[in-house]
Amino acid sequence: MRKIYLDHASTTPVDLRVMEEMLPYFTERFGNASSTHSFGRDARKVLDDSRKKAAKAINAETGEIVFTSGGTESDNLAIKGIAYKKGKGHIITSCIEHKAVLNPCRLLEEKGFKVTYLPVDKYGRVDPKELENSITKDTFLISIMHANNEIGTIQPIEEMCDIARDNGIVFHTDAVQTAGKLPLDMKKMNIDLLSISAHKLYGPKGVGLLYVREGIGLKPLIHGGEHENGLRSGTENVPGVVGFSRALELSVKKMDRESRRLIRLRDKLIKGALEIDRSWLNGHPEKRLPNNAHITFSSMEDIDLVSELDKYGIASSAASACLTYSTKTSHVLSAIGLSGKEAHRSLRFTLGKDNTKEDIEYVINKIHDLIG
Amino acid sequence: MRKIYLDHASTTPVDLRVMEEMLPYFTERFGNASSTHSFGRDARKVLDDSRKKAAKAINAETGEIVFTSGGTESDNLAIKGIAYKKGKGHIITSCIEHKAVLNPCRLLEEKGFKVTYLPVDKYGRVDPKELENSITKDTFLISIMHANNEIGTIQPIEEMCDIARDNGIVFHTDAVQTAGKLPLDMKKMNIDLLSISAHKLYGPKGVGLLYVREGIGLKPLIHGGEHENGLRSGTENVPGVVGFSRALELSVKKMDRESRRLIRLRDKLIKGALEIDRSWLNGHPEKRLPNNAHITFSSMEDIDLVSELDKYGIASSAASACLTYSTKTSHVLSAIGLSGKEAHRSLRFTLGKDNTKEDIEYVINKIHDLIG
Repeated sequence: MRKIYLDHASTTPVDLRVMEEMLPYFTERFGNASSTHSFGRDARKVLDDSRKKAAKAINAETGEIVFTSGGTESDNLAIKGIAYKKGKGHIITSCIEHKAVLNPCRLLEEKGFKVTYLPVDKYGRVDPKELENSITKDTFLISIMHANNEIGTIQPIEEMCDIARDNGIVFHTDAVQTAGKLPLDMKKMNIDLLSISAHKLYGPKGVGLLYVREGIGLKPLIHGGEHENGLRSGTENVPGVVGFSRALELSVKKMDRESRRLIRLRDKLIKGALEIDRSWLNGHPEKRLPNNAHITFSSMEDIDLVSELDKYGIASSAASACLTYSTKTSHVLSAIGLSGKEAHRSLRFTLGKDNTKEDIEYVINKIHDLIG
Repeated sequence: MRKIYLDHASTTPVDLRVMEEMLPYFTERFGNASSTHSFGRDARKVLDDSRKKAAKAINAETGEIVFTSGGTESDNLAIKGIAYKKGKGHIITSCIEHKAVLNPCRLLEEKGFKVTYLPVDKYGRVDPKELENSITKDTFLISIMHANNEIGTIQPIEEMCDIARDNGIVFHTDAVQTAGKLPLDMKKMNIDLLSISAHKLYGPKGVGLLYVREGIGLKPLIHGGEHENGLRSGTENVPGVVGFSRALELSVKKMDRESRRLIRLRDKLIKGALEIDRSWLNGHPEKRLPNNAHITFSSMEDIDLVSELDKYGIASSAASACLTYSTKTSHVLSAIGLSGKEAHRSLRFTLGKDNTKEDIEYVINKIHDLIG
């Protein structure tokens, strides 16, 4: 059966060029980067090279890259790392963050920290004015995602990180959905902490990074052999890091062109889907990820559209993968004003590098067959 | 040049059979295990199967396996996870644990927990009597490694976990060096928490597990999408877990035979090395890892023996890889009574599946050439 994968926000296949680059480090060049013999030195060198490559992709310094086991760990390290360093105080975030940000914030509330969860407008945007008004003398951290994983809305983070900087507050952003899709320049942007995950950009699962601006002090979450400059102990995942850095490099290289292509396909999909009666696009109409189409089909009967499309080989998503097995309505869709019923009649399509015009036409046809 | 890798305690190459099993999950069967479409269900199934395989290898229940990013994270999750659940109290560990145990304990001391670091005898063994005498009414955790990563000494953990059980205390062991080398049976042994790392047993880097006996409550370290039964959030590293479980299965399967083979080679190496004047074996003469030979050459001049052997293609270690770039004397060697000078004249050889009798003969010759 034809297989059309439209769930790239959830995960992506490893690019074959990335795979090729990783392979030798599993079986032949397998040394522990902390060993001093030739196997170890070889691993150390490729680890250093990978760090340089990753740093270059976001225009950061090599010493500002901390490799982790993925986006969730990066978010946890950023938020808890700075909070535990401060000991107490106030954090500002938004109500539509990923659980990897929200749940650390909830934990910190239990520990006596104050947290403000900013609301969003109907497009899912945080208002920078509202952010500014929420700052108190105790605010030490602002964490606002770069773009939302469900509805694809891009936040005005440049404005927000400038506000943070003007107020002497650390700014973190979860860029898991935007790295390789939107420009990230750590020299130009006033971002202090930034999370990226490899498996969202055609790299391997189990590896990510936290950009930590020089001078920002964090407490580590995982203690041990003092790897990653003392910020993240544990034998370095050399093949993973090699693959991640290569994937990030490739994504950034082809970003402009690929984004334009994805936008064309995305808009075609949106147009086709919106021909269905009483359907609408969620998220911002323009300030959205190039590959995200999130649509509510309000006239739809209570069918499981993900399952129905799956029968035709089409992989889509009802919410973020991290919420799939939850029976609760997505907190993101609630925040932009959807009812539980509307939320459950919504579908996320996230496009990727192998999707073609023909794929999109096929998908539009099937949607019309099922609910048109 | 001939390459002889004798640093398997530091890391191992991925077994080709393991690699083969992992490969499809990077590029083709790449789904997110939380997605409900066919890609996701496929990933969920293989994740479940891998968990069963890993559980079987240590005779545990499937629900007792928590996959992590490696041994260090597993140790951190075990120790901090139980400590944060308790809130306060007393922990007993040994002074020769890996930094992944010692550093979390030091952190907990800063947070007001009491920690007893038990001494060891000249062979590096903890005395179960002394353990028993250290228990107070506040003791909630005992963490003693199964075998030491530097000197290879195997601890009497069966005796010690029975003491813990008799006193209603949770028992954790770092089995990173023993999994696949010594029998681990969670139904027979009174172990409550047990850490394993994949890359020490011919699996991939960046993946490990924590065995958590049913009924043992832990607080997670990484919060987010509530993966791994809420104990470890973050998209599951499917290829990593597939490789790890297969590697563990293979190691356990060939364990008896391979151990006997390694012991023969190890003893040959020890015998050859000890022919050098004023040299001795560190660690226990019998109760030691089948692949570990740790020798002090006290008459040696101040040469960097690791580097010298490396010139002949022989990879050995001066301490654990995690301590390599530290200028301090190994805490393990200090604990068994070696002076700084003796410690720096010591070498660890850890053998593995590809080492042959000829390798060992070559190594013995080179040692004699260099310091004989």
